[in-house]
Amino acid sequence: MNEKSLIERIRRAAGTRSQRAGRGIGNDCAVLSLPRGHEALITTDFSLEDIHFRREWHPPDSVGHRCLARGLSDIAAMGGIPRAAFLSLALPADLPQSWVDKFIAGLLKLAAQFSIPLAGGDTAQSPSGILADIVVLGSVPTGQAILRSGAQPGDFLYVTGTLGSAVAALNQLRAGKKLRPRSHPKHFYPEPRVAVGQFLRERKLAPAMIDISDGLSTDLGHICEESGTGAVVYAAALPAAAAGKDGLTLALHGGDEYELLFSARPECRIPKQIAGVPVTRIGEILSGKQMTLANADGQMQPLKPAGWEHFG
Amino acid sequence: MNEKSLIERIRRAAGTRSQRAGRGIGNDCAVLSLPRGHEALITTDFSLEDIHFRREWHPPDSVGHRCLARGLSDIAAMGGIPRAAFLSLALPADLPQSWVDKFIAGLLKLAAQFSIPLAGGDTAQSPSGILADIVVLGSVPTGQAILRSGAQPGDFLYVTGTLGSAVAALNQLRAGKKLRPRSHPKHFYPEPRVAVGQFLRERKLAPAMIDISDGLSTDLGHICEESGTGAVVYAAALPAAAAGKDGLTLALHGGDEYELLFSARPECRIPKQIAGVPVTRIGEILSGKQMTLANADGQMQPLKPAGWEHFG
Repeated sequence: MNEKSLIERIRRAAGTRSQRAGRGIGNDCAVLSLPRGHEALITTDFSLEDIHFRREWHPPDSVGHRCLARGLSDIAAMGGIPRAAFLSLALPADLPQSWVDKFIAGLLKLAAQFSIPLAGGDTAQSPSGILADIVVLGSVPTGQAILRSGAQPGDFLYVTGTLGSAVAALNQLRAGKKLRPRSHPKHFYPEPRVAVGQFLRERKLAPAMIDISDGLSTDLGHICEESGTGAVVYAAALPAAAAGKDGLTLALHGGDEYELLFSARPECRIPKQIAGVPVTRIGEILSGKQMTLANADGQMQPLKPAGWEHFG
Repeated sequence: MNEKSLIERIRRAAGTRSQRAGRGIGNDCAVLSLPRGHEALITTDFSLEDIHFRREWHPPDSVGHRCLARGLSDIAAMGGIPRAAFLSLALPADLPQSWVDKFIAGLLKLAAQFSIPLAGGDTAQSPSGILADIVVLGSVPTGQAILRSGAQPGDFLYVTGTLGSAVAALNQLRAGKKLRPRSHPKHFYPEPRVAVGQFLRERKLAPAMIDISDGLSTDLGHICEESGTGAVVYAAALPAAAAGKDGLTLALHGGDEYELLFSARPECRIPKQIAGVPVTRIGEILSGKQMTLANADGQMQPLKPAGWEHFG
């Protein structure tokens, strides 16, 4: 597929949504207004074949969904409102057109769910494999973006949803098992927690937040590093998707989750469910620099960042 | 080089500039304020090894420079003010660290020239070759972005700088010739015409503009298509970098130029030089849909878009 026909296909598929973006695909830049009093949030995320997905494992609409979900989840983690997406897409010359159409359809379906246009991007021929880079522009009232650096000793730690099933599905794929994508939505069609992030930001409930894209242990490490704190995680409290020691390991270190991890002052009441998503208290921010895992029997052990690495 | 050390190196190299971006690298998103009354401009551009550059042809600082120049030139073409850059960078595991350092240095040197921070991005291991995607965020007073669609029959057509030497250098590289990069700055270190674009926008001189990244014939075609017009180009007026028929062909169809092509109402006085860059009147916007080349002897021939294709 040559670049011109690719741009045309994306334009057609994006259709009226691109019109709404004002002057999107078709000029050197997209032009977008942000609400008065808002700051811009920008995030970029690669989705590279054989690094972030595999063609034999992931159907094209899942690749498109996951590609955009990565960016939306970053916006969610700041408490932001997604405004527009931009896609840089490089394709091998021999890629079937139907693959591209389904990829774009998966991406646009998720975009429609969050009412954002695909407002621009770039296309190129790929020297090898499918290469996508998604940019999501969001906005947030000035000064209200939730950073990683706002946690304080004494804050409670919360996580949305359940942990571990995304990487469990990945491990099954790695072991050569065929999976029905619709039966493993946490891996194939993850839902970015945009509404949860906005709820927490609007009510000023979360002084620090991150999405669990690299695994709880690694991403909690980021909050601790940026906030200059330590933390304790209660093993028994973790909303692990599977039971037992394996379930705990996957919940602690499995990435690719798109759940949110946030801190809240101990006096703040955090709902058990936000926007239909369960929220679980899993630990506490401590002074010092250490991360600790408290087991059910009261034993404490050091918690080391050991999150998900790309499956290159 | 693993991802963590890459992020660290970029952070260190970007240094205080990233600080200025507020909360850039180190959170899920970068947070950036735009001036009140401004709209956002966003552009994304791939720089892929063996598609947009070759390691044996382009020194790493030139690859970094060209990578960012692509995005800055898109901002220039809308009359915008660049605000921040974001880099998604995937590298092969065996790439020497010195290559990356020089690439980043080349990119940051150009960023410093335009006073913009490298405010975020993504890193990954590449399955094959060096893969970069640059995002540039700019801004423009609301409603004042210069689009491709504003040309009217009777407008004069202007171009900045000279045309053809970038692709001439590329052709020499293709022919196996070794070039000294500093002796061919139009190819290795192109200067995005940001100041020219801003000058034209501030004075409302250019109703339509584009950068010549795909070649004059192709990019003029974009203006004509978006404006619903035709155009005539005077061959003798073209600021071709080389003489003769070859020089004319390169000026008409050679891309990778980063010069600006714009229209202006016939009653507007356009300076012969803007921000130190020569500006040349090369033709006129016509009604109808045809593009025509008028030769020095008065002969007219159809002008077909035949711009530069990626050298994949």
